[in-house]
Amino acid sequence: MATERPAKLRVFSLNCWGIRFFSKLCTQRYEMIGELLDREQHDIALLQEVWSEQDFLFLKKKLSSSYPHTHYFKSGVIGSGLAAFSKHRIQDALLYQYSLNGYPYMLRHGDWFGGKAVGLVILDVLGLKAHVYVTHLHAEYSRAQDEYLPHRIVQSWELLQFVRHTSCGADLVVLGGDLNMHPQDLGNRLLRSHTGLRDCYTETGTFDGCEDGHTLIANNHFTKKQDLIPFEKGIRIDYILMKGSQRVNMKCESLSTTKGSVADKPFPYSDHEALTAELALFRSEDSRQHESGNTPAVSEQMDVVTEACAVVKEGLCQTEAMRDKAMHLVFGSLLLLLLPLVLAFLPCSCSFSFSTVGLLGAVCISLFLSGALLYLLFTTHIKVLKETEDQMMLTSNDLQTKLTGCQLSGSSSSDGSPELQPRSPFKREE
Amino acid sequence: MATERPAKLRVFSLNCWGIRFFSKLCTQRYEMIGELLDREQHDIALLQEVWSEQDFLFLKKKLSSSYPHTHYFKSGVIGSGLAAFSKHRIQDALLYQYSLNGYPYMLRHGDWFGGKAVGLVILDVLGLKAHVYVTHLHAEYSRAQDEYLPHRIVQSWELLQFVRHTSCGADLVVLGGDLNMHPQDLGNRLLRSHTGLRDCYTETGTFDGCEDGHTLIANNHFTKKQDLIPFEKGIRIDYILMKGSQRVNMKCESLSTTKGSVADKPFPYSDHEALTAELALFRSEDSRQHESGNTPAVSEQMDVVTEACAVVKEGLCQTEAMRDKAMHLVFGSLLLLLLPLVLAFLPCSCSFSFSTVGLLGAVCISLFLSGALLYLLFTTHIKVLKETEDQMMLTSNDLQTKLTGCQLSGSSSSDGSPELQPRSPFKREE
Repeated sequence: MATERPAKLRVFSLNCWGIRFFSKLCTQRYEMIGELLDREQHDIALLQEVWSEQDFLFLKKKLSSSYPHTHYFKSGVIGSGLAAFSKHRIQDALLYQYSLNGYPYMLRHGDWFGGKAVGLVILDVLGLKAHVYVTHLHAEYSRAQDEYLPHRIVQSWELLQFVRHTSCGADLVVLGGDLNMHPQDLGNRLLRSHTGLRDCYTETGTFDGCEDGHTLIANNHFTKKQDLIPFEKGIRIDYILMKGSQRVNMKCESLSTTKGSVADKPFPYSDHEALTAELALFRSEDSRQHESGNTPAVSEQMDVVTEACAVVKEGLCQTEAMRDKAMHLVFGSLLLLLLPLVLAFLPCSCSFSFSTVGLLGAVCISLFLSGALLYLLFTTHIKVLKETEDQMMLTSNDLQTKLTGCQLSGSSSSDGSPELQPRSPFKREE
Repeated sequence: MATERPAKLRVFSLNCWGIRFFSKLCTQRYEMIGELLDREQHDIALLQEVWSEQDFLFLKKKLSSSYPHTHYFKSGVIGSGLAAFSKHRIQDALLYQYSLNGYPYMLRHGDWFGGKAVGLVILDVLGLKAHVYVTHLHAEYSRAQDEYLPHRIVQSWELLQFVRHTSCGADLVVLGGDLNMHPQDLGNRLLRSHTGLRDCYTETGTFDGCEDGHTLIANNHFTKKQDLIPFEKGIRIDYILMKGSQRVNMKCESLSTTKGSVADKPFPYSDHEALTAELALFRSEDSRQHESGNTPAVSEQMDVVTEACAVVKEGLCQTEAMRDKAMHLVFGSLLLLLLPLVLAFLPCSCSFSFSTVGLLGAVCISLFLSGALLYLLFTTHIKVLKETEDQMMLTSNDLQTKLTGCQLSGSSSSDGSPELQPRSPFKREE
């Protein structure tokens, strides 16, 4: 039962595009973002791509009175880029760095160097325990030939596992961030169907923002138009998701996005649009019934996990092939290394200087080391992909058991949380 | 209130020392371990150092009827070495790989190559939801000069954070594994005090095993006696820990260890001793009162987290110094690279062959790449240490708030779980 005058929670999310010396007008934009946050006084602001700690510290100082509680999540070489600014006390924080996140040699993409992750801050909001997640998934550089799809699916899986296993004691759950996935992309469906998280855009009472909730739009000063093809109008890849609990029902009353330009300013806050959600919290003694209306059927969960598992399997085959190539490089360079060795010891070697032999040797050793490093890299990727596949199979089997149980008992839906299986009474042994 | 005839849970834990082609008599010992497990029919067996998947598959096949449910946790280059064999259905599995785990260049230690982690399997045990964790922490190679102490403290922190945030919905919690820490070592105290997990050895009703519960003993065929100095009698580094819930009280009725030799066999199962705990599960409508008697006071939690934070800070200073050295190597090699460039372009270069210049260049580039890789490695380590320090500070502040609250209300203890703070009623906004 909802109370008549609900408590409100205002949540903000923005990918700040904060790559120092690369992102345009970074300093000025952080100044604008700081002003916006200070003016709007959200309950919680979730930022992504705050790659420089100095920029975080600038915002922290500027917002010390409006957002006295902050956490900057540190991981990877550059950082996770994730930051949380809160009006409410942060009791605890936890970070899970994704196991797969591109390749270190893909310097022009660079995702690997940012330790992409999901961060959790636990807040005390009006006496309620709020689990607030912020995340940023691997970018999609080509929709037609997305070589990172298995990585993003593994990240989606790790994200949903992290959320569903760490949100158990929460009164309310909010997730904000740049998922780098369109609304109906596999990873997005996987996340929503297995956590019960609901998309504020599709749930909101009122919406004020870009068409179809787009957060990457052509009408943004910083957007490269060719990146949007074939979605000229824009795409929606930034989200605020939410979920209540047995104690609290949640409803998104309004959602807004920035619209590519800022009044009285010559450029926007970022190359992404910002999201602001106003969430209403209703006290409820039995919200399960209410929440379950929005959660997918077990059969849908089964379908989506099967689809995801197929992508992981394909990623596994590709990575095994890459590991094999790395092994060929290792053996090839070892064979090649025989050449300088032979030159050094054969009688005819007099015609080759020590330095020639040395140079050839150095080249072979460099090739060998490169091959060995790549072999190690792909081997760890294979381990991660296999672990993900195994976990997906376990979930699939568990869903199958639930489905069989549901069919036997005549019911056909579940909210997907792992504790919903009917419990037999505590049996005793002799 | 306890029931009179409790349900029982038999838990087994063993570090199998399963390094193929290195650990002695590996095949024969796996055969023996398989026989033991098959004969003893535990509810759950938690194995560590099962480094080869082939060995896991051998056990899986051999134990298919006695332990029909298994999970082998895959991470790192070699694997995590962790495996769970269960009589009860595994509903779900989750893996958290520790962010710090030694250095890849420490080949003779090799911990880095095994992706050390904590694995969680969620079991349906007699209608109860059991969260069973298995882990293996970084080894201690020198107690006097333990260069890996900050790594093990970070691992202990990540372990406790993982356990306390993923065990919220569990009816009962069991953790088994090789913690590579003595009972009163900092990381061990940190883990127990912040999770409320209780040590079966200190809690057991009856004990049958090595003196003081040692799991590395001199009287083991495979033990190197010098590794035990100055603890000639042995050390206790393998554990089974447990925790109940509001629904279930847990008691360790008996604990046993193997004793270095096996009847009718010429050698033991491993270089570690195996642990078997028999846990009694009592139904309880209000176990909180019972459990809280065993959980540490907030002031104790504060002390131990402060002590751990100091170790992390020291680790941070050391790692920053190492990163600086790596940077010097990078700059030094760049300067050195000028030499072949100068030789190549100066008029006097005729006296140096192309190959000499090339060889010198190759050496410089190798040094540069090594320095750059080390710089990246230490930078990621610094990020992890800083993140851990920040999380510890948050916990410390939260404990301080609790302590102040407790003092104000005249109470002075807490079970340390984050949800214990008294909740104010759900306030309303206009």
